[in-house]
Amino acid sequence: MVFPEPLARLIRNLARLPGLGEKSATRLALYLLRRPPEEVFELAESLKEMREKVRLCEKCFNFSSGPRCDICQDPERNPRLVCVVEDPAALASVEASGVFRGLYHVLHGLLSPRDGIGPKEIRVSDLLERVRREKIEEVLLALSPTVAGEATASYIAEILKDYPVKVTRLACGVPMGMEIKYADRITMKRALEARQPL
Amino acid sequence: MVFPEPLARLIRNLARLPGLGEKSATRLALYLLRRPPEEVFELAESLKEMREKVRLCEKCFNFSSGPRCDICQDPERNPRLVCVVEDPAALASVEASGVFRGLYHVLHGLLSPRDGIGPKEIRVSDLLERVRREKIEEVLLALSPTVAGEATASYIAEILKDYPVKVTRLACGVPMGMEIKYADRITMKRALEARQPL
Repeated sequence: MVFPEPLARLIRNLARLPGLGEKSATRLALYLLRRPPEEVFELAESLKEMREKVRLCEKCFNFSSGPRCDICQDPERNPRLVCVVEDPAALASVEASGVFRGLYHVLHGLLSPRDGIGPKEIRVSDLLERVRREKIEEVLLALSPTVAGEATASYIAEILKDYPVKVTRLACGVPMGMEIKYADRITMKRALEARQPL
Repeated sequence: MVFPEPLARLIRNLARLPGLGEKSATRLALYLLRRPPEEVFELAESLKEMREKVRLCEKCFNFSSGPRCDICQDPERNPRLVCVVEDPAALASVEASGVFRGLYHVLHGLLSPRDGIGPKEIRVSDLLERVRREKIEEVLLALSPTVAGEATASYIAEILKDYPVKVTRLACGVPMGMEIKYADRITMKRALEARQPL
């Protein structure tokens, strides 16, 4: 390549990122070369800081910059209600609704025997431990209505039967903005079964 | 946002990059969070190094990590033949052919009166200066056959008339792999006019 080594090195590193090939890595590097140095240094610094400081909350396994995440530390939250999510992105989605005021438990995965992901590969035993210790009254399973999500929800509901805790899940139905004619059969079946008074 | 500040900061910075919105910036940040720290530190370091070290070659204005770029310093190159390109990416494309053994001159732009880019905004006077001082015998205009590229080539050819230098340009024709039926009229006209013995 004809680019000087510091530029070639950056392009090699950028090209390794998902969704970036060599062409888009080159375009991005050339863009950064035209930006003010402080802006590029800020990006570099934030990469470093993120990887150094972000870890998992020791209680709910959400991302955190300290031992406990902000949500677990919030005294306004109801610690008896725990919402189980697949990963921090799903947690962000539940939070974005603005209506959930309990705590979370992040599994970091869903059961998928085909991929060798069993209960030990996701944080299920930590959940049982919390149910035992934290006097949790309700476990809300906010798992995707997919094969893996349903399997994981069934598995957790099954083992929680032995505990004095209420297990709930998100309502399944036709999403906002979707035209009824495009709803699949199973979504429609669930939406009908869970129909609500207006 | 529910992400801890170091992660949110990185997402904000990534989302500013061209072609990345908040969603893809989040996906990228979460990907980097799962990578080994050394890999992320290497990316951060290469960003910093690139912006600190890469500058323009004082002779041809190609990217360089020292005062002169590798090409200008190569004693095997013919210093009497100078290829004029729009930007370093175009230079890379000419170099990739492996057949050009002269030096370059990078304009860093093309004339575009509509966008307020006149001769003073691109490195034309530096080119004249080089033609005067470096005993250049041939100036090869490797500019894109676009409106701006053609305008820039005509402008440079015009002012170089007063200098004892040969001005050439890249052949325009049907590109390799293109089906003839898809060639536009002007490309076909040029390809016919410049037809060559087989």
